[in-house]
This record gives sequence, C-alpha cells and structure tokens, in this order.
Amino acid sequence: MGEVLYIGVDLGGTNIKAGAVSDRGEILKEQQISTEADQGSAHVLDRIVQLTQDITEGSEIGGIGIGIPGQIDVNGGICHFAPNLPGWKEVSVTPAIREKLDCTVVVDNDANVAALGEFAYGAGRGSQHMLMVTLGTGVGGGLVLNGRIFRGFRDLAGEFGHMTVDYNGYTCSCGRKGCIEEYASIRGIVRMVQEQLDAGVESSLKDIEKLTPREIYHDAVNGDKLAIEAFQQAGDYLGIALADVSNLLNIERVVVGGGIANAGNFILDAARARVQKDALPVAAQSVEIVKAKLGNSAGLVGAAYLARSIE
Amino acid sequence: MGEVLYIGVDLGGTNIKAGAVSDRGEILKEQQISTEADQGSAHVLDRIVQLTQDITEGSEIGGIGIGIPGQIDVNGGICHFAPNLPGWKEVSVTPAIREKLDCTVVVDNDANVAALGEFAYGAGRGSQHMLMVTLGTGVGGGLVLNGRIFRGFRDLAGEFGHMTVDYNGYTCSCGRKGCIEEYASIRGIVRMVQEQLDAGVESSLKDIEKLTPREIYHDAVNGDKLAIEAFQQAGDYLGIALADVSNLLNIERVVVGGGIANAGNFILDAARARVQKDALPVAAQSVEIVKAKLGNSAGLVGAAYLARSIE
Repeated sequence: MGEVLYIGVDLGGTNIKAGAVSDRGEILKEQQISTEADQGSAHVLDRIVQLTQDITEGSEIGGIGIGIPGQIDVNGGICHFAPNLPGWKEVSVTPAIREKLDCTVVVDNDANVAALGEFAYGAGRGSQHMLMVTLGTGVGGGLVLNGRIFRGFRDLAGEFGHMTVDYNGYTCSCGRKGCIEEYASIRGIVRMVQEQLDAGVESSLKDIEKLTPREIYHDAVNGDKLAIEAFQQAGDYLGIALADVSNLLNIERVVVGGGIANAGNFILDAARARVQKDALPVAAQSVEIVKAKLGNSAGLVGAAYLARSIE
Repeated sequence: MGEVLYIGVDLGGTNIKAGAVSDRGEILKEQQISTEADQGSAHVLDRIVQLTQDITEGSEIGGIGIGIPGQIDVNGGICHFAPNLPGWKEVSVTPAIREKLDCTVVVDNDANVAALGEFAYGAGRGSQHMLMVTLGTGVGGGLVLNGRIFRGFRDLAGEFGHMTVDYNGYTCSCGRKGCIEEYASIRGIVRMVQEQLDAGVESSLKDIEKLTPREIYHDAVNGDKLAIEAFQQAGDYLGIALADVSNLLNIERVVVGGGIANAGNFILDAARARVQKDALPVAAQSVEIVKAKLGNSAGLVGAAYLARSIE
C-alpha cells in the first residue's frame, strides 16, 4: 500500500467501519471497531482518527469520506443531529479530523454515500440519474443526479421514504399520513401480514409468535399466499412512489438495497409492474429497477469515492 | 438595438410569440403572429425564422431559444411529439432554423423555459433549487436544480402534474389514478364544486350554467363558502404533492403560475399550510411558495435566457 490512500468511514451507532478503497472500488484493507457512542462525540471522532491511522499505517492519505446516520451540513462539515449517536448535536466533524490527519475530509449523510457507492461501483454504474432506496426498519433514500449526489437547499434531499402514497393512510413516524415508509418497510410488511392473520386469513405464518421479514420470506418461497401477497403489496406501493419520482425526475436507475430487498423479486417485480403501469410512457421506459450490489459496503466505498471526487 | 440580440420564442398551437430579451430580462421588442399549425411543421419553422428576422432587422443574433409545448430531445434539437401542433412528430427544429439564421439555436419544453424565465428574472430569483408549477387546464411543472433546468434521462423531468396524491383517486388523462392534475387544475376545481352542488350544498354558484374558475373566484371573494373551500381543497392537495417534492429534493422555492394561480391566496395559503404540516421540518423550513411574476412572458424570456446561457 505505497500509494496515496483514500479512506471511507461508515459511522454507525454500534460500530465504526473504515477501509482503504481503490479507484476501482476495491476495499484494500478494512477494519471495524465499536463506536462507544455513549462516551460522546469527541471520543468517537478520536476513534475514527485512530482507526484511520491503523489502516493507513503511515501511508499518505489522499482523503477521508465519512458517512453519518444523521442530518449533515456538508459544506460546513457539521453533523446537526444524529438520532442514534447520543449527544451529537452540531458536532463539527471535518475540522476535528483534519487537524489530526492533515488531509481532505468530507462528511455526508449515510444514505447519500451509500447511493454514491452503488452509483460509482455497484448497481448504479453507467447511469447518470439514480435513486437508491433502502428498505429496512424504515425506508431510506439517496439521489444521484447528473452523476453527483443531489443534496438540495439544506442537504436534506433524498428523503424518498417520506413521500406519501395515500394521504389518508397510516400515520408515519414523521407525523405525516401514508408515507411509503409505512408500506414498504419491515414495519409495514409485518403489519400487513398481522392484519390479515387477525382477520382470519389462512397462512403458514399463523402460528409464528413474532413475525419477521425472514419468516415471511421463508414462507413466501414455500408458496404461502399471504406471505407472497404481503411482499407484492409492499412492492406495489413502492412502485407508486417510484412512478412519482420517475415522472418528476425522469431517472434511469432505481437501486433497491437494505434487508428486505433480499426478499428478492417478490417486491421488485411488483414495483416494476406498477411503475410500467403508472408512470408516463417515456418515464417508464427510461427507468430500470435493480437490486443493490454492494450490500453493507456501499456506504464505505461511497464515502471513499466522495473523498476522491472532491479533491 | 445595435447590440447582439438574444431571441426567445414561445411557440403555441395558436400563436407564435417572439421577443428580443436583454440580459436583465427586459423584453426589448416583441411580436406575435398566428402559428398556422395546420400548414405543417416546415411552414411553422419558416414563420419562426421570419418572425425572428422581423424583430432583429439585420442586427446580429447571439442565439435563439424556443419553447415548444411537446416532448423534446434538447441535445438533438428535435421535437418528438407536440399534441397541439398537428403533424409534429420527430421534427428536427434546431438544424432547420440554424441553417437560415446562422446562430445558436436551442429548443426545450415550454414548461421548462417558463420555469427558467421565473428562475432568472421572476419569482424564482435568488434560489438555486426551484419548482415551477402551472395551474391551468392541467398541472404543468418545470424543475431548476443547481441553477439549471433539470431534464433527467430523456428530457422528460418536471412532470409534477402526474405525481399522485391518492392512488385510489380520480383517474387522470394519463391513465394513472389520483394525479395532482386531477385535483389542482381547472378541471379538478370545477369538478369539486359541481359534486358539492349536485349533493345539494348551498352556494351562490348554484344557478350558474357553466362553471369556470373565474366565477368560482368571484364568488369566493364574495364569501361563498363552497367556492372558498374548492380553492382551499385544491391548495391542500397541491400541498401534499409539494411536500413530496420538498422531502425528495429539499427545494427552496415553489413558483406557482397559470390561470388559477390568479385566484390568489385561497390556493396558496392552503398549500403552504399543508407543506408546513406534512414535510419534514428542515424541508418545510427550506421552501417558500410564491406566485409567479412574469405571467405569459415567462416562456419567452426563459427561452432567451436559455439561448444566452448555453452559448
């Protein structure tokens, strides 16, 4: 590793993962340590510095990109707020790290760097206008427009999960009604299954004590009608929101990642069918909906790519 | 007019309007002729050339921008299709005009150039991320992101009117259900009033033979409850879709134009209230919803600005 290294950091509430990433997106070296978030932001920043030094072992650092699960001021290098990092309010990230490592440091929202990772090295390659959607506990989003992360006025852009599909629908954690997050997340799918079970619908899922996407997927693969329909319904709702994005932005690629995306084509096929039905013809023809390729590494390689591209 | 002139052309199904526009957005000279669309695209293009020559009177032409109510390939200078211009299928606009006038020629969708006009010289000034919404027979849209028209993969971006607010709602002309166009257009507002009248709701509008937005506005100003509610409801639906756009793009300005926008703050106040209620806090704080300033001139000055800015 004699060359100049670019480091991607994926800061989470539990662990910090960092890696040196080549210009082709290969992770040359990767390490993970616990975040120790309860010891405060200064301690966490020190740990990021330490981890970076452990990885680079004295090699020259070209730049560090850091993905943070919170609300970021990218130009200022500040984390306004991060719900899973106790005490992170208006934390000045960039100066603190630059002072100790003397290199380019850039921070961004974790969903944005994951989108950038898939765009540069994963399922978004070759596109110029891409939405990444992450289906997990909630529904996350990151937008790449004209080949760059699109952040909007105050770096909040990409909140796909809080587009509404039914203004009279279920109330979302954000307070709004009918957000796609309430339909295409783990929470949404489990709720759909539970409602049907409660209504007496027959299903191999009926004796399971605590429903999880894993069990629903297992039963879907084994042909359980209710399990299949729950994923398809989530995909259909997802398609409604994706048709909105397609009509508004005429994107060419939607990359779907996150835990539930592994439930495979039950969701994606339904989403694709809905987009073809609902979006304007040219918008529908323009857009491909594909599974993410980089899994949990998307954020790390995307953060390194961000550092590399702003130099 | 000794200087180099930039010409904006607003091509409509009935009339062609063209003008020389200063770099401050002032219309120095403007003329309008009938389109004579029934005589075919070559004839219409000749008329644009003739009109431009009449306006410029031998002065040097720096560039011509043309807004066309259709689906455009901006790089190719082609109009794929324009519903109100008979026979306009795959019409090569740019080369035909450049051949005769020997200057920069650029074509774009009429909604895009209107958005650009408001952005450069009207109610969008000072913003970097702006949506223009036109409330008329339908609901049109044009997006300016990072200070430029955002066109997406195949120049279709900006179709705000076909974002859905109710996936089980009224069927739109595009075939989709619940598009905002079905709620915030003339058609939508008249339908809302008619439904209430049919249901026996008392209103000063009940004896009017053919409802138009003008009459509904007149009665709203005079305090008719149904008329006021129709506009407010349209504004509320508009706000739902604008909250979606705000969450997705974190825009800083929404400029509302078109015939119904003149119905004033009945619509806009309701839209503003809904966005404040529905959008994520930062997104809601970021966005201002304002009335368009340039009226029917937005397209013409925007087209000239487009020609000026791509030189």
